[in-house]
Amino acid sequence: MPISRVSLLKGKSPAYLRALSDSLHQALVDAFEVPLYDRFQLIQQHEANELVFDRNYLSHQGKPRSDDFVVIQITAGRERSAATKAAFYRRLVSLLAESPGLWAEDVMIIINTAAAEDWSFSGGVMYDGVAQYSKADEMK
Amino acid sequence: MPISRVSLLKGKSPAYLRALSDSLHQALVDAFEVPLYDRFQLIQQHEANELVFDRNYLSHQGKPRSDDFVVIQITAGRERSAATKAAFYRRLVSLLAESPGLWAEDVMIIINTAAAEDWSFSGGVMYDGVAQYSKADEMK
Amino acid sequence: MPISRVSLLKGKSPAYLRALSDSLHQALVDAFEVPLYDRFQLIQQHEANELVFDRNYLSHQGKPRSDDFVVIQITAGRERSAATKAAFYRRLVSLLAESPGLWAEDVMIIINTAAAEDWSFSGGVMYDGVAQYSKADEMK
Repeated sequence: MPISRVSLLKGKSPAYLRALSDSLHQALVDAFEVPLYDRFQLIQQHEANELVFDRNYLSHQGKPRSDDFVVIQITAGRERSAATKAAFYRRLVSLLAESPGLWAEDVMIIINTAAAEDWSFSGGVMYDGVAQYSKADEMK
Repeated sequence: MPISRVSLLKGKSPAYLRALSDSLHQALVDAFEVPLYDRFQLIQQHEANELVFDRNYLSHQGKPRSDDFVVIQITAGRERSAATKAAFYRRLVSLLAESPGLWAEDVMIIINTAAAEDWSFSGGVMYDGVAQYSKADEMK
Repeated sequence: MPISRVSLLKGKSPAYLRALSDSLHQALVDAFEVPLYDRFQLIQQHEANELVFDRNYLSHQGKPRSDDFVVIQITAGRERSAATKAAFYRRLVSLLAESPGLWAEDVMIIINTAAAEDWSFSGGVMYDGVAQYSKADEMK
């Protein structure tokens, strides 16, 4: 929680995918109130005709999207404020620009929200919504 | 916004996938209040044992689903009325019947809704919810 | 309705995938008020670097997750009570332990909920929300 679905075109190196994963998680920790070890991501690499996107619609500063376009759809376990979401978007784009070197116009982000009771992390146990930070985090 | 996840069995031609993509987008524009250039789709082609579906459950006019079965799950950026949704379902099935030639019983549709603030189209900028139609649309 | 997205690492046998699918559906029928023939699942098999997960965060009884880790994200057509969800989580983990033999710590579950009007099962017809049990179910 959250869990992120990351979609992009095939052809990137393992190092690129790792950098993308790292920056996404760092942005969640930095700006979306996510615990350090709460890291769950599903990456999907598409063939060119499986990832359909308009290169110009509402793109940043009118620059067209490129073949590096990535969609990041995040299912969160509780609502964040609009201000937190806005700061998260900025932080994520900033970190992705550093590593793996994604242009800002190539990043689309969507957040969906479920309730705490809609999650079981493990063991068939319903998430209680209070364990925001695990023992692992306390040790950091 | 919206973004659509399209799931079907592997084995269709590029032309078929393109026709499926085109009809989906046309139905969104015609009947779901989506701007012409607001086109974002993620297509996933499954192996036979990865796409599990009952051939008869609530199928149209009792006709069984075939191997052409497609699931279209749409994440929208704002709520539409029930009447709009119903008209969209009808329009989508009608267009898919024309091209690529899908039987009505083979189309399952699910809509999920997020808020405007849950979207960043590009550049780390939160969607303001008012840019329903881009300049590109004004020019059409 | 519901429709489930199941994500796991590549490398499992067809029999394993079938057992996973069967146990998921059985748990939905047993404990989530899902009709017997209402079975729709999308299975995605990932390369190792496409399925990113922390092995210890909130894991069951502190046992680390293994390479058998599976994410089950369910989109339901109406809200269930917290008690029903909790019982479903327990039932699902119990059935998966029997077959295909998944450890409890390797099962993550997330539920998203849409409204009845957000579904069309087939034929472009909006789901009316009352057909909880089909004729096929009445015959069982």
